[in-house]
Amino acid sequence: MSDAPIPGTAVRGRPRSEAADRAILRAATDLLAERGLAGMSMEEVAARAGVGKATVYRRWRSRGALALDAFMAEFQALQPLPDTGTLRGDLLAALRAWVRAVTRTPAGRILAGLIAAAQDDPELAAAWRAQVLEPMRGQHRIMLRRAIARGEIPASTDMDVALDLLYGAAYHRLLQGHRPLSDTFTRRVVEVIVAGLGGPPG
Amino acid sequence: MSDAPIPGTAVRGRPRSEAADRAILRAATDLLAERGLAGMSMEEVAARAGVGKATVYRRWRSRGALALDAFMAEFQALQPLPDTGTLRGDLLAALRAWVRAVTRTPAGRILAGLIAAAQDDPELAAAWRAQVLEPMRGQHRIMLRRAIARGEIPASTDMDVALDLLYGAAYHRLLQGHRPLSDTFTRRVVEVIVAGLGGPPG
Repeated sequence: MSDAPIPGTAVRGRPRSEAADRAILRAATDLLAERGLAGMSMEEVAARAGVGKATVYRRWRSRGALALDAFMAEFQALQPLPDTGTLRGDLLAALRAWVRAVTRTPAGRILAGLIAAAQDDPELAAAWRAQVLEPMRGQHRIMLRRAIARGEIPASTDMDVALDLLYGAAYHRLLQGHRPLSDTFTRRVVEVIVAGLGGPPG
Repeated sequence: MSDAPIPGTAVRGRPRSEAADRAILRAATDLLAERGLAGMSMEEVAARAGVGKATVYRRWRSRGALALDAFMAEFQALQPLPDTGTLRGDLLAALRAWVRAVTRTPAGRILAGLIAAAQDDPELAAAWRAQVLEPMRGQHRIMLRRAIARGEIPASTDMDVALDLLYGAAYHRLLQGHRPLSDTFTRRVVEVIVAGLGGPPG
């Protein structure tokens, strides 16, 4: 409410609004897709969104924070949490959605660029973990908790290790490019993890 | 032999020598460890190695190629191929050596920096795969071939997927820093992969 202009008063700059926020995120996403993080300046985001630079800075204090929000909004929308009834089905659907997002949309290049930039920018790295990685992992843990509840995997399953195996293998191919992110890859990764987590054969 | 100076002839510049190569690789490794790839210039490598810049360029045509050779020599020396007699023992020893190298030596920072730089440098990315990644994977496949020969895992095992799971999970923690590269992590990653590759319980 405090951001809404009071009728009849002179307002310096533009009020913060959801429409402006959306326009800024849209402009940031487009610039990220076209040029990567290095090519996304706050000036150009503001110009494309049709707002002043101060409006952008009022909401996002750094280019990195804005880039992460823009990326996360797009990336998460491409990956609804699956609920197929089995761990195998859930992991397969989740990894397929991830692979589709990074291979068929600009998300792959943006993702790789953000992780690269985070390697010598501790502030961006911390924001990456807080704004992108941990929220995604929180979602993914739900699949594992459901599998524990169904008795498919032991309650003692190390969920962090399980997610590192699933997404680590996929990030490995994305970032190093030594082999394609094929559907055969996706299926085999899930096979090994599901069999490996299943506990000792009864 | 063609690089050896012929006694009594005028040699322009310095002859290529193993001692100079070693000094150049040493200087490059030190600069990489101190400042990362961005802080390693060919001029400074030459100055530290006590050779002319032309000598460095005669042997390595780009900073990236030199950085990869310097890194690979150090990194591989830290990771002798294990041969413990079991797949579990081999994978555990191999992943422990990798984790030790990236957490207790400058290799981790250099590794992360090289992968980051490769994201927007296709030439460096190709050299990375050819000079570092594929030679390492070639070594690692030997562990899986021995396990197949011993009957521990099926001959149909997808060795690429197995290595992507093992090292992908570890690179994931190195590059994203969300959880520590602890020994518990190492042991659990190996447990899941060995159980998962073991084929249907007989």
